[in-house]
Amino acid sequence: MRMSQLSAESGVAIATIKYYLREGLLHQGEQVAATRAEYDESHLRRLRLIRALLEVGRLPITSIKKVIEAVDDESMSVHDMLGTAHYALSPAVETGEGEEWVAAREQVDHLLTELGWQVYSTAPARDELAQTLVKIRQLGLNTDLTAYAEAAYRLVTDVELDTFPLEGPRDTAVEALVLGTVLYGRAFDALRRLAQESESARRLNVSPRGREGA
Amino acid sequence: MRMSQLSAESGVAIATIKYYLREGLLHQGEQVAATRAEYDESHLRRLRLIRALLEVGRLPITSIKKVIEAVDDESMSVHDMLGTAHYALSPAVETGEGEEWVAAREQVDHLLTELGWQVYSTAPARDELAQTLVKIRQLGLNTDLTAYAEAAYRLVTDVELDTFPLEGPRDTAVEALVLGTVLYGRAFDALRRLAQESESARRLNVSPRGREGA
Repeated sequence: MRMSQLSAESGVAIATIKYYLREGLLHQGEQVAATRAEYDESHLRRLRLIRALLEVGRLPITSIKKVIEAVDDESMSVHDMLGTAHYALSPAVETGEGEEWVAAREQVDHLLTELGWQVYSTAPARDELAQTLVKIRQLGLNTDLTAYAEAAYRLVTDVELDTFPLEGPRDTAVEALVLGTVLYGRAFDALRRLAQESESARRLNVSPRGREGA
Repeated sequence: MRMSQLSAESGVAIATIKYYLREGLLHQGEQVAATRAEYDESHLRRLRLIRALLEVGRLPITSIKKVIEAVDDESMSVHDMLGTAHYALSPAVETGEGEEWVAAREQVDHLLTELGWQVYSTAPARDELAQTLVKIRQLGLNTDLTAYAEAAYRLVTDVELDTFPLEGPRDTAVEALVLGTVLYGRAFDALRRLAQESESARRLNVSPRGREGA
């Protein structure tokens, strides 16, 4: 297809497509005449991935470039390619210093070993979790996260991973991972707040009728 | 205790305590002499609550004022007081228009009715969830959130609500709700990413040894 059709099918403006081509985010089309290039399904897939990283993942262009490089580097395994996208989505965490931080990082590493999870020692979510644990401990709250870990694992194995197309085109796998991680995470957070409200109503004997009228 | 001791015990600077007194976030101490006021446990509890709303909840002062008003308004039920704090923590959502938005809001309302959850019709998390559903549907992903809802409810009933002191001082109950909602939410999100990485490694047969060395 021509660029105009690629734009129509993807919903991405021609000027934006040209920008992605210049930046190397989108691979060049096949030059079929001096002034005409042909684009195909692979370009559509790539545009969908870029939009997912940009609009749902809210990644800056520099991070998107790194993810795209991983997708294009066929020598990189699917697992490491997905990891590159995954790590790019993780919020930046200030790693701490001192005893509290060391103890929290040890607790995280110990928990993951106990659970038998296969996670790189460099995974940014380890630091993210340790940072939260430092706060939880400082505030005197319960630091046992086993129930949370088990719930997370159940969701991931029972629901999420089955919906990720790990076998198909690399772009599609990364796109699904980004969308799934961000959107279902957001949905779960909203559902948890709703469940808290409902359970608070139940325990405090708030009448359902009064609530409906509010 | 004097203000200097209140500052030492709470870790909040005297200038900041004076600011909270001026803004009406902190109630005045008992005037025991022309130049001396006495503060007690209730002031310490209030300072802890303000810091939780500010540092963990990341709420602006105007929102903190509203939460404090609810805590001070003894005619407001504990459930509605907690709800005020809860709703203040919810991210602002642009409610949509048009068929897609209406269908998503209906799906959310239908899901909550099916689950039998007691949630005010004005709860902001309804809109938050609807907004996410619009995106999930547009992208052609699975819109069935039942497994997520069930997992959220299990965590809330089995773990979270038991750790919230619903019976004690109002400040303490709100503080626990804010800390619990934000920090365990953050911990769960990190754990979910770690579980995804682990399950991806398992399904893609990544050897644990190679991973440890990474």
